[in-house]
Amino acid sequence: MYNAVVNVTLKKSVLDPQGQTVLHALESLGFKDAKKVRVGKYFEVAIDAKDHKSAEDRIKAMCDQLLINPVIEEYTYDLKEAR
Amino acid sequence: MYNAVVNVTLKKSVLDPQGQTVLHALESLGFKDAKKVRVGKYFEVAIDAKDHKSAEDRIKAMCDQLLINPVIEEYTYDLKEAR
Repeated sequence: MYNAVVNVTLKKSVLDPQGQTVLHALESLGFKDAKKVRVGKYFEVAIDAKDHKSAEDRIKAMCDQLLINPVIEEYTYDLKEAR
Repeated sequence: MYNAVVNVTLKKSVLDPQGQTVLHALESLGFKDAKKVRVGKYFEVAIDAKDHKSAEDRIKAMCDQLLINPVIEEYTYDLKEAR
């Protein structure tokens, strides 16, 4: 069993109004030292796979087919074997 | 300048209907090897701080005061110095 952690963000070239809103909220709470905020999604997926390579193939396929909108989003993932 | 990456998830004891929905969607796409999904939020925050310790204090304060609902959510963060 493998645990995959996927972080999804909007591409750098895509405006992030949610991030802007959070930044303004932080500023109005007095956090003037917050300079940039981007907001995204986070997925934890447990994958039943026999080895690291096949787990990696599966999480990539899941991202491409369901979790991610490749037009406006990009993602990073981290894969660890669960004991 | 420091870059903080914050991953927010629902506490383990809190039901995650969004994660359940994603899991069912994965299953109906043929990903029978996906066994558990939890969905959360992801923040990237650039913080203007003089050292690691003060950046850490600030990101914790931001999480506690705005980004996180401590009743149902928990978070992890990772802090790196930007060049």
